[in-house]
Parts: sequence; C-alpha cells; structure tokens
Amino acid sequence: MNRDVRITQVRITPVAFRDGPLLNAAGIHEPWALRAILELETSDGRVGINETYGDAPMLAVLEQAKAHVLGLSPFELNRMEERLRGSIRREDAPAYTLAPGSDPSRNTAKAISAFEVAMLDLQGQMVNAPVVDLLGGAVRSSVAYSAYLFFKYAEHHGKPYEPDAWGEGISPEQIVAQAKRMIGLYGFQSIKLKGGVFEPAHEVACMQALHEAFPGLPLRLDPNANWSLASSIAAAPALDQVLEYYEDPCPGLDGMAELKKHTRLPLATNMVVTSMAEFRANVQKQAVDVVLSDHHYWGGLRATQQLARMCELWGLGLSMHSNSHLGISLMAMTHVAAAVPNLSYACDTHYPWQDEDIVVGGRIAFSEGAVRVPAKPGLGVEIDRNAMAKLHDQYLHCGIRKRDDLAQMRKYDPSFSGKTPRF
Amino acid sequence: MNRDVRITQVRITPVAFRDGPLLNAAGIHEPWALRAILELETSDGRVGINETYGDAPMLAVLEQAKAHVLGLSPFELNRMEERLRGSIRREDAPAYTLAPGSDPSRNTAKAISAFEVAMLDLQGQMVNAPVVDLLGGAVRSSVAYSAYLFFKYAEHHGKPYEPDAWGEGISPEQIVAQAKRMIGLYGFQSIKLKGGVFEPAHEVACMQALHEAFPGLPLRLDPNANWSLASSIAAAPALDQVLEYYEDPCPGLDGMAELKKHTRLPLATNMVVTSMAEFRANVQKQAVDVVLSDHHYWGGLRATQQLARMCELWGLGLSMHSNSHLGISLMAMTHVAAAVPNLSYACDTHYPWQDEDIVVGGRIAFSEGAVRVPAKPGLGVEIDRNAMAKLHDQYLHCGIRKRDDLAQMRKYDPSFSGKTPRF
Ligand SMILES: [Mg+2]
Ligand SMILES: [Mg+2]
Repeated sequence: MNRDVRITQVRITPVAFRDGPLLNAAGIHEPWALRAILELETSDGRVGINETYGDAPMLAVLEQAKAHVLGLSPFELNRMEERLRGSIRREDAPAYTLAPGSDPSRNTAKAISAFEVAMLDLQGQMVNAPVVDLLGGAVRSSVAYSAYLFFKYAEHHGKPYEPDAWGEGISPEQIVAQAKRMIGLYGFQSIKLKGGVFEPAHEVACMQALHEAFPGLPLRLDPNANWSLASSIAAAPALDQVLEYYEDPCPGLDGMAELKKHTRLPLATNMVVTSMAEFRANVQKQAVDVVLSDHHYWGGLRATQQLARMCELWGLGLSMHSNSHLGISLMAMTHVAAAVPNLSYACDTHYPWQDEDIVVGGRIAFSEGAVRVPAKPGLGVEIDRNAMAKLHDQYLHCGIRKRDDLAQMRKYDPSFSGKTPRF
Repeated sequence: MNRDVRITQVRITPVAFRDGPLLNAAGIHEPWALRAILELETSDGRVGINETYGDAPMLAVLEQAKAHVLGLSPFELNRMEERLRGSIRREDAPAYTLAPGSDPSRNTAKAISAFEVAMLDLQGQMVNAPVVDLLGGAVRSSVAYSAYLFFKYAEHHGKPYEPDAWGEGISPEQIVAQAKRMIGLYGFQSIKLKGGVFEPAHEVACMQALHEAFPGLPLRLDPNANWSLASSIAAAPALDQVLEYYEDPCPGLDGMAELKKHTRLPLATNMVVTSMAEFRANVQKQAVDVVLSDHHYWGGLRATQQLARMCELWGLGLSMHSNSHLGISLMAMTHVAAAVPNLSYACDTHYPWQDEDIVVGGRIAFSEGAVRVPAKPGLGVEIDRNAMAKLHDQYLHCGIRKRDDLAQMRKYDPSFSGKTPRF
C-alpha cells in the first residue's frame, strides 16, 4: 500500500427506502426509512463506502466531521478517532429514545463508526483484503441472523405505495405465519419478536405460539422497555421455558437489576448498555447478562471487538442489534461478527423488511439464515449508482427528515399517548 | 495480499546476551539474559520475526504452540488466538514471581503474543505497511522511554567477561551519576529506579538526590513488592513531592488498596494487574491507578490496545513495563505505543543495559529519549544472521536455562534469604 494516499473528498448521500408498517413501543414505522451513504474518495482514485443513520441530526454530525477526516490516510483510524472525539459536539440526550441510534449523546461514537468502516473499506481495497482480515480474520465463514418478527398492520396510513406481501401481524396465528414465511424465505434458525406493542399477556401468548410452532428454536422477546418492572416480573414465569433471553422488558439499569432477582432468564439489552460508560455502570450493578452490540453506535468495528472482549471478561453474552438498514450495513455487521469469537447469538437484522437496496447485484442473499463472509477486498459490496440515485430521489420526496414513530402512530390513533412504560 | 499464503515453518532460536550485574528484589541479574527469536516462514517465502522470553519453560510453550500455528494465514490472528487458548497448558503459578514473564499461568497470553507479533510483521511485509498501520495508525511519530536505573555492582561474580562501563551504582551519588550518563547517552526525559534492594530510607534518599539533580523530570520508584505495607506507608510522605507514580512498593492487590488510603501518590503496577482477570479484580477493589502494559504477557499488541481502552474507561493511567530485551521487542513496543493515545507515560526499557543485538544495523537509536516509529513494512527490523548465530552460540555455552536471580545473589552472599517482603 502507498502511505501517501490521502482522503480527498467525503460525499454523504441521504437515501430513503420503503419500510413496513411495523409496530413498536414508540408507535409505528413510517413508510420511508432513512439512511446516509458515505463515500470517501482518495488521492489515488478509490472510493470507500459505508452506511449509517440518515436523520437530519446525524447528517449534521457527519457534515461536522468531514473536515477532520479530509487529508488523513485511510490507515489513520486512531488519529481519525482522536480528531472526532475532540470535535464532535455532544448534545444532551433526549428524555426518551427507543434506540441509541437517535441519541445525540452518542454522536461521537456514531461519527467515528461511520468513517471507520469506510476507511476500513478503503484499506481492504488498497491491500486486497476483505475487512474481516483487517480485524484479525474470520473465526466463522458465515454469520447467522435471526428472524426479526414485528406486530404490523397490513398497510401504511394513507397508502403511500402498494401494501407489502406480509399482511397483518397481530394475532398469535398471524405472528406464527409471519415467522413461517420469513424462515421459508431466509432459513433463519432463531426468532425475535419486537414487543412492547400490546398487553403483555398477548405478547406472551405469541411467544408461546412460536414455541409450539418451532420447537427447539431459540426465541427472544423485546418489549423495548414498554413494560413496567411489575409487568416484567409478572410475565417472566410464563416466558421461563420459552425464551433464549428477555430483552429490555422494563426501563433503566436499576429496573433490569431488580428484575434479575425475579427471573432465571438471561436479560439482554440495547437500551441500558449502549456505550462503554454504560458498560462500566452495568459491571457495578450486575443488571444485564447479554449486551447487544451495534457497530453504528458503539463506535465502529474495532470498538465492537473491544466490547466483545469486555463481555468475555465480565462473563456477559454478546448479541447484535439492528435498525432498518441496507446491504452495506449488513456487510459491515457480517465482517465484524465473523471476527468476534464470542458473538455466539444469531444477530438481529431488519433486512427482510426492506425490498430495496443500493448495492451492485441487488439484495444480499441469505443461506440457512446466514450471510456468507465476503472474500472480496474491503466490505465486498459496491454502490449501484442508479439504485442510489433512485433512493436519494425518494429521500428528496418522502418528506421525512427525522424518524417519528409516535407522530406516525397518531395518524392511526390520534389518542395514542406514547407514554412509556405503557403496560 | 494473497489470501492463500500460509505459515509453513516456525523456527525458534534461543539466544543469550550480556546483561549487567543489576540488583533487584529477587537478587541480582545473571551475566546472561535469555530471549527466544521467532521466525515464521510462509508459502511465498517471507519470514516474519519476533522476540519473546527465552527461558526453558517458555521454549516448551512455544514448541507446544507451533503445530497450531502452522497452516494459518498470517491474517488469521483471531483463529490463532482461539487455537492457542484451546491448547496451551496453563500451569499453576509459582508462589512468587518478580515478573509475570516467568509466570506459567500467563503461558497462553505469552504464546499468543509471541505469534501475533510475528504474524503482524508478516502482514506488514505482505501489504507494505508498518505494523503500527495495522493497529489503526500512529498517533505519535516517536515513543518516549524512561531512563531505567538500577542499583548495581561494578562487575559480575566470577568475572565472566570484562566489566561494563557503568561502574558501581549504590550510593545516591552513584545513582545520580548513572542517571547523568544514561541521559547523556539517550536523552531520556523521565527516570525510573528499580528499588526493593536496600533499606527504604536509602532508596528514598536516592530518589531525593535524583529529584535535586533533575528538577522537573518525572521520577518513579519500583521496589517490586519488597517493602511491607507498613514500610510502604511510612515511606510515602517523603516521596510525595518527588514521584510521578509509586510502583508496586508492597505485595498484593489488597496491600496496594490499603496503601492507597494512606498516600496521594498514584500507585502503579506490573505485579498485581498483569492479566485481564486481574484488571477486573482491580476494578472491584480500586487499588492501583496506573497499569504497566507489556505486550509480551498481556497477549499481544491488540490485547495491549484492548487494555488501553479499558484503562481509559475506568480512569486508569497506562504505562509500559520491560524486561531485558533486544531490538525486535523494542520495535514491537514502539509500534504499539505509537498506536495507543492514552499511553501517555514514557515507557520502561532495559535496552540501555544491553550492548548486543541481533538486528541488521546494530543497536537501535534513541533521540531525546525516544524511538522513532519505523515507516518500513512490518516491524521495520530484520535479523542479522551472523549476530543471531553469535548470540545463539552464547546461549549454548552460557549454562543458563531459567532465570534465577536468587541463586545468582547467593554467589555473592550465601546467607541471602530471598524472603519477601524483605523490608
Ligand atoms: Mg432491542
Ligand atoms: Mg515494576
């Protein structure tokens, strides 16, 4: 590799893609999900790519970071990190966020991650190695993902486009049917249900129906802290023989620590341990047992490896969280998961809920629920310019600039409170 | 890079080199220090090198590890680590070790480190990048080391070769003279004295003499746990305005935790926090403030980066420990230190006490107490075959197979007890 190569240009392209009417604790997904596509151009004419959050605040953070990345070699990850740590404004966290992806106190980690992955893609191209080889090499040849089920309506409010093929998903029978369809299409070997939508008894009934329909398959339920501590404790015995882990039923590290005294279920989270500082707090309080990594907000692929080592050291399990995303993110997730020996749970992915992508060759294939670790240089995917132009155009016209599942829900039900925990 | 390249041969060459009659808590250095030189040969004819401990037990560990490394790509660091974790015998720790380098419970970490560095050297050669670039790139262009002073005799027992140029180092005046000579030769900008040899009052007097002779220079004292807790507490006030940190005065994590209540000095260690598990214990007990890294027993350059992040997260300082070593180790230390932003203390090195080396071009240069981070591919140093043959020959004839500072001391003083803490 040539050490004189420098990053000479940073392009950030927001895109929007169709997303299902998926219900969650905050409300319902809007018809368009946003992402930002990063392109780092180098003095020797290469382009390194990545994908991250595409809401307006994140676009502003990326713009702010740009100047600090220009002029660096793609190998200067530590210096990039040092510069962004010293320059990205950390804003106060909002009172409530469903996911750390939209938490401004994670801005620095999110920006570092966004540029790190694109720089690793460049490194891989420069030395002709897949990103996983730059992370110490693969310990597995493919990465298992889980079937990520959602309660959902049959179609979006106002019918912005034709309804998806999944139909309604509300009753236990409909959820089992959704699982069957998804496993039929992708071959997943574990199942997660996004809960926090209906009364706990209904969601527990859905998990029991899944347990009967898919005996032996690991199951997870994630009410996104929309159950009170009391409800979480009350629901635990019925889930005892059913769940692989119990993900964020109730709010707060203290809540989870208290819940832990009342259940033998491993407690998992992507809400109360979402940064190194929160990891430290969890070590003190011994609240959760399984941490969901997500390189997008944990600070990158190397930070995810860091987290993995810390989980191993403190005897914690490690899984992976996901937001609505496209193929570039799926590839980055796959590279890092392949390099982490103790990422032993199947990773979450929203990918089956998308039907568009911007990568050359179209949507990425799953085999028996897993994605093969690419052997091509860098991330192993390239941008399809026409596809990206189309999704950018959708961004320009969709009218969404910041995800708001609550406002969207009020289109269906003006009295929807958004209060949490609701149950 | 070619992903089909495989490690086809592992060569381990023990070497011995002259070492000064340096006093420490365990006794006195023998006239020959041992190291092992690793060479990994690849299917495309490259040779990756590294240097590690050369005592007989470590040579046996390296032999045991060989078979698990053969056939791997130099990029398969994670798989190498997984294999060695699963195969290296962990033996019980001896009752007392001066340094974790000779602690068999660290065998796995030591073996992983030995092969990791040589594999990184290969990676660097294959992609034409210095090792530091494979660790995320340099955050500094040179790495500062400290002047590592020792109490010493003028010559070795039995005069195995001509006395060194340093003369005796016992009185405060002699120690100041030693510091002046070392700083004159190397330009170091901080000073460490290896203590635990004489009565604490004498060692404190030496530190005070150094403080007067070198106003403003950071000073450290390391009695290697040879002072009782009571002696350590008693000596603290006199050192209060003199030391940068107080390194392992008394034994045990509990001892250090108790000492911490009695002094405002930061407590440093390479004796009670020497593994990830001990790091975790220190988090609970909040005993030491500064951890001395050493990639040779912490599990490699990547593990040192891991340790650095954990130190940052728990608000601990990070410095670097050293044993008697040659130029390959000095280069590995320099690459990793350059990649770690919070390795903010000058690193320890025994290098000035050696006058031989096996690297092409001879002994590595210091400028203003620092070593320049090499820009050449890999570690940036190569083996001088003639020099290595000579040092291997010295190994064959020196008669030493396991470091024994206690037995060596008894040649001078048959009544030397070796009891610890002695003061
Ligand atoms: Mg979750
Ligand atoms: Mg020490």
